Amino acid sequence: MAKRGARNRQRNAGLDNGKFPRFWGTHAVTAAINNPERQIRWIRGTREALGAFDLPPGVPVEFAEVADLGRMVARDAPHQGVVAEVEPLDDMLLADVMSGDPARPLVVLDQVTDPHNVGAIFRSAAAFDAAAVITQDRHAPPESGTVAKAASGALEIVPWIRVVNLARALEEMAAAGYWRIGLDGDAEQTLGDALGSGPVALVFGAEGEGLRYNVAGHCDVLARLPISAAIESLNVSNAAAISLYAAHINARND
Amino acid sequence: MAKRGARNRQRNAGLDNGKFPRFWGTHAVTAAINNPERQIRWIRGTREALGAFDLPPGVPVEFAEVADLGRMVARDAPHQGVVAEVEPLDDMLLADVMSGDPARPLVVLDQVTDPHNVGAIFRSAAAFDAAAVITQDRHAPPESGTVAKAASGALEIVPWIRVVNLARALEEMAAAGYWRIGLDGDAEQTLGDALGSGPVALVFGAEGEGLRYNVAGHCDVLARLPISAAIESLNVSNAAAISLYAAHINARND
Repeated sequence: MAKRGARNRQRNAGLDNGKFPRFWGTHAVTAAINNPERQIRWIRGTREALGAFDLPPGVPVEFAEVADLGRMVARDAPHQGVVAEVEPLDDMLLADVMSGDPARPLVVLDQVTDPHNVGAIFRSAAAFDAAAVITQDRHAPPESGTVAKAASGALEIVPWIRVVNLARALEEMAAAGYWRIGLDGDAEQTLGDALGSGPVALVFGAEGEGLRYNVAGHCDVLARLPISAAIESLNVSNAAAISLYAAHINARND
Repeated sequence: MAKRGARNRQRNAGLDNGKFPRFWGTHAVTAAINNPERQIRWIRGTREALGAFDLPPGVPVEFAEVADLGRMVARDAPHQGVVAEVEPLDDMLLADVMSGDPARPLVVLDQVTDPHNVGAIFRSAAAFDAAAVITQDRHAPPESGTVAKAASGALEIVPWIRVVNLARALEEMAAAGYWRIGLDGDAEQTLGDALGSGPVALVFGAEGEGLRYNVAGHCDVLARLPISAAIESLNVSNAAAISLYAAHINARND
């Protein structure tokens, strides 16, 4: 596992508070506390909310009023009485996760930038035992409180691998034996028909834009979900959830 | 189809602007324009945004600046340069939708109140040809801009049926031959095993709370999605998307 370095420092520039990620909400903070890899800088919360936590020794904890907590996080953030400032997790390498269980899918996001969608995709990735979520460094949101809240703890479970070049990462996946399926509403094949019997990487583009040409060109097959013509597309986090489920069912039936 | 009446007037009290729903964003407004059942009170937009619309005759249209549009809708709403004030759609009766194609599933939401989730569920319901989304009058968000934006046009496609009593509505569904599956993370059976061969109603509870006791008691079977123990639950809109996909695949294989 590579150590925190220049890339992590650069990434922090884009965070909620311009420095360290602040997580809020019961699930996100509980999961951060339970993750031995996660360094927690401090925790603030109401007496009532903190009473329900098993607080880690050595972490500065202070009581705070609801209004003060509201000022520590994004506007209207549903903090549920608790805020934790954390350090980003160490970077992981794609090679590390690909050497694990080949039955676990990879999730590749091409320019999916909405933090709620990215967080919800992490949650589904954890639910269906994905080995990692892979994004391109410059076209993905930072590890933030909004992502962590939507992920509902899954940021601590599923490795987030940021690569400089998504096409090159897809080449690495092919070399490691992954069948790369790009989700594309205009594809002829359905996902159910495109799923094979080996390890799989599911590749999703941004809503509206879809997969970029070069990313689509680095997939082994393009596939669509079997949706009605009445609607143009699914929400990307819903498309990811369905695809992960389909891959799970497919692997179980093989 | 019942006509607009006291219940619609009461519902309006909870809307974004305290009166009529305001929709924003290209997809939501385009879909409202294309729905002959939808009465549009007025449309405001930037010259650039409105230039891309096929504006309906007889609807007052005015140009507006981006900042003015921002003041017409919820804070930080991504309006994409267009806002439309509309009338709620006429109420529909459950009996009307159940007399249609029995292959189309019903989606029942028990106290799912987050408007983003409800909107995203409408979008998935349209994608998988659901016959209707059924909510309980007092425990569901009003037809609002936030719901319409997340639904991405699907509010104009999938009937939204609000009932006074969900348990009674579930009894009506049983009488009409629907197999009522309540999604419950603690259930023994998986959804794949619980799906039968006839018409199906998929019943979802609020995140965290789950199905209420009386609603669960009005289901024919409780079923879970096959998720990892690493995470407590899926986001409810993702759970609905997966369930609708599973029902679609099941109906095709029968």
